[in-house]
Amino acid sequence: MSDCIFCKIAGGEIPAKVSYRDEEMIAFDDISPKAPVHVLIIPREHLATLNDPGPEQEGLLGRMMTRAALIAKERGVAESGYRVLVNCNPDGGQEVFHLHLHLIGGRKLGPMA
Amino acid sequence: MSDCIFCKIAGGEIPAKVSYRDEEMIAFDDISPKAPVHVLIIPREHLATLNDPGPEQEGLLGRMMTRAALIAKERGVAESGYRVLVNCNPDGGQEVFHLHLHLIGGRKLGPMA
Repeated sequence: MSDCIFCKIAGGEIPAKVSYRDEEMIAFDDISPKAPVHVLIIPREHLATLNDPGPEQEGLLGRMMTRAALIAKERGVAESGYRVLVNCNPDGGQEVFHLHLHLIGGRKLGPMA
Repeated sequence: MSDCIFCKIAGGEIPAKVSYRDEEMIAFDDISPKAPVHVLIIPREHLATLNDPGPEQEGLLGRMMTRAALIAKERGVAESGYRVLVNCNPDGGQEVFHLHLHLIGGRKLGPMA
């Protein structure tokens, strides 16, 4: 997936403000934040959309969710509140076709859709 | 958790338009839909917020995510697009304190926060 910007971030070819990385995922600040806290959590594996994971990726998806909650705690928004979301395909507003979770917090959030 | 409305829905004490159920989760239509498709996916286990799952619930969380994608496909919005999200605590807009995923689609969605 040589043209995927998120694969390049995961591979270190494009710089990002990375706050977490392990063998299966990385987390970094969104370059166009919609709130004081706006972190993206992506799998290293290239999966285009949320339609793509199968049973073999369910553990990974769950770990990405709990990682989002842990990052929310680190950023001090776990108790005030936050939103974790995945946009899929055009109606969902997906812009980069490498699966990613948005973690958004640090202010009172607006409508969810 | 006798006062939890989602526990009561999971237990069949309160009716809901249930579209999926298994031993660990159920899915049902949101009674105040924000879009043509608005389904909630909840674990049967009472977990108040996304801050609560630990490593032992990661598989469940991942299966809830892939279930959301499967329901999106059943409802005909997998390709047009949808959003899957969790609101946590007040700033996130959480209203019922039993962990739930929102699956929202069927129209071009607005800003995510």
